[in-house]
Amino acid sequence: MNDHTPLSIAKALIACPSITPATGSVFDAAEAMLELLGFTVERFLAGEGDDDPDHGAPVENLFAIRGNGGRHFAFAGHFDVVPPGNGWTSDPFEPEIRGDLLYGRGAVDMKGSIAAFIAALKHIPEDAGTISLIITGDEEGPAIYGTRALIDHMQARGTIPDMCLVGEPTSVNRLGDMMKIGRRGSVNMWITVEGVQGHVAYPHLADNPITKLTAILAEIDALILDEGTEFFQPSNIEVTDLTVGNPAHNVIPARAEARLSIRFNDRHSGDSLSKMIAEIVERGGGTLKPVISGEPFFTPPGELSNAIASAVKAVTGLDPEPSTTGGTSDARFLSKICPVVEFGLCNATMHKLDEAVAIADLDQLTEIYRRIVTAILTVRT
Amino acid sequence: MNDHTPLSIAKALIACPSITPATGSVFDAAEAMLELLGFTVERFLAGEGDDDPDHGAPVENLFAIRGNGGRHFAFAGHFDVVPPGNGWTSDPFEPEIRGDLLYGRGAVDMKGSIAAFIAALKHIPEDAGTISLIITGDEEGPAIYGTRALIDHMQARGTIPDMCLVGEPTSVNRLGDMMKIGRRGSVNMWITVEGVQGHVAYPHLADNPITKLTAILAEIDALILDEGTEFFQPSNIEVTDLTVGNPAHNVIPARAEARLSIRFNDRHSGDSLSKMIAEIVERGGGTLKPVISGEPFFTPPGELSNAIASAVKAVTGLDPEPSTTGGTSDARFLSKICPVVEFGLCNATMHKLDEAVAIADLDQLTEIYRRIVTAILTVRT
Repeated sequence: MNDHTPLSIAKALIACPSITPATGSVFDAAEAMLELLGFTVERFLAGEGDDDPDHGAPVENLFAIRGNGGRHFAFAGHFDVVPPGNGWTSDPFEPEIRGDLLYGRGAVDMKGSIAAFIAALKHIPEDAGTISLIITGDEEGPAIYGTRALIDHMQARGTIPDMCLVGEPTSVNRLGDMMKIGRRGSVNMWITVEGVQGHVAYPHLADNPITKLTAILAEIDALILDEGTEFFQPSNIEVTDLTVGNPAHNVIPARAEARLSIRFNDRHSGDSLSKMIAEIVERGGGTLKPVISGEPFFTPPGELSNAIASAVKAVTGLDPEPSTTGGTSDARFLSKICPVVEFGLCNATMHKLDEAVAIADLDQLTEIYRRIVTAILTVRT
Repeated sequence: MNDHTPLSIAKALIACPSITPATGSVFDAAEAMLELLGFTVERFLAGEGDDDPDHGAPVENLFAIRGNGGRHFAFAGHFDVVPPGNGWTSDPFEPEIRGDLLYGRGAVDMKGSIAAFIAALKHIPEDAGTISLIITGDEEGPAIYGTRALIDHMQARGTIPDMCLVGEPTSVNRLGDMMKIGRRGSVNMWITVEGVQGHVAYPHLADNPITKLTAILAEIDALILDEGTEFFQPSNIEVTDLTVGNPAHNVIPARAEARLSIRFNDRHSGDSLSKMIAEIVERGGGTLKPVISGEPFFTPPGELSNAIASAVKAVTGLDPEPSTTGGTSDARFLSKICPVVEFGLCNATMHKLDEAVAIADLDQLTEIYRRIVTAILTVRT
């Protein structure tokens, strides 16, 4: 291919500053390019009127679609980027080529991937089937009004994809070495045990909350949530903090607190774990406050992951590992409406200073995406 | 008796400010009074040259002795007082009578008791036997150079009492309702568990110290040190603090700490408990730092407590409970050289604002002390 299109699109997108929640210019650029490619572009703000500062509203979202027959292939991603931080070699929002690399915030996470997908579209006939792009301005933030709002939008217009590729940077050491067919879920929990303060010399007049908390934590530590699955590591509980803050050696404190973090596979949900832990905590005399960060998703190996593997193999010679490791992504939402797999650039520099993508990777990813879409849409239902 | 002497002595002692470590004027006042009563008074500073601020050096101590035949009865106490704090109705170091009470820092803990004992001496013939006073300037502080140094002093001069009354304020609601025939020991312990910090999503790369600490604490909580004895409550362990201080929800911390406080009876020593807990902690992957505040003491009911009970009954009509409850006192040191029992004023206001003693209690305590000493010294060996 090597027609400079992926690089040019990536530079254009990086040049539009878009720290979460992203709005405006980066969407304007994408809209123009997608319309040139024959797409219908629908943009909307979600969360207007919600002034809770923790909700990150309002959020701009873009849904673009081309074709209205045959299978429907969707590509999902986000234009928002994490704050660049101080210490960059060049301006993080002025794309700069140094050597074989393109530098700029979002180069790999994930304006580069979106650029590769748009560039790939240039080589896919308009009549090949239905293709859509599901692009949010809030994936890195609270994600309340991002992909969830886009799913509402698609459901309202009666357009549900047959499968979805998420362009997150899943490659580790070389482009193509890993894709994500699932992600673990994540829930944090706060345990509080109230007691009765008193003097250690008169323990019958007090009620030590640490004794109860210790018993609760020992019971939680003894839990085996599961042994893992073929594709998932075992679900895991870590106690990440203990807080009493009692400076007096001879005083039994009035309250003790602990914080847990659970990363869990598809044998569980945030709710099922919250109920399981709450039962232990309440029986032990404490109270539990769970905050679910994300549910797990899992797409069993099948047509989409096979298409990705074949395309990666053809372009790079690598066999991508179908992994479920790492943090959470918007695939947790999209997996509720269709099979989802994540595949994209190398993630070594994501969220870091001097984020950069190899220009050769942009070209290879464009060809990989082209092959994937072509393979999926060639199958007639 | 009612000759105002106990009140006058108490006022004189209170008027000499003597926050720990006490030196100077309060000892000067006592020396003069004791010499008038025929005592030889030996004063010395201990700990000179020790500039560790935690050791509270130097400390003034006073040993006074009268008589050199027959049984040797000792009275022990301290001139130092805890800081008065702000908010007193009258100057804490200007003794003031309001109603039936004498106000001032040390009124009950324990210048009032010392005053009562000195007043009692006036009514005990010089040839009744040997009487000594063992008075330190540091009982409320680190107590490193206080009563311990006085014991060294007595051993060096070859003078060991046959029994010792400590004038701590042991009465609770009414003068005479309680004496202390023992005190529990006290040890604080710091447990530290070092781990390896890491991300909760990659627990195999980390080593969570909280897991180990929880297991250690659960094992410690399950310990039954003893069931108590006829005179002692069961020994008791309380975990008084937990410290991790990890603000990051997704991080496994590098270190976790706990603090224990153990109050223990005469079935144990600070060393035996430190070894027992260290074994659990080290087997669980942690380290233990014990700090022994005091060993327990116990004087089985016998001649001294019987003499106290008879004197109290005669003067107040009460039967004092032979208790081992409450905190620690210098009796823990003196019990190593002779039988020790504690008896003194009501402790309701000790260490508090507006510390005060009932003037009638000073008079009654003087008579109680006179009867105790007389009863003990009347027995010819």
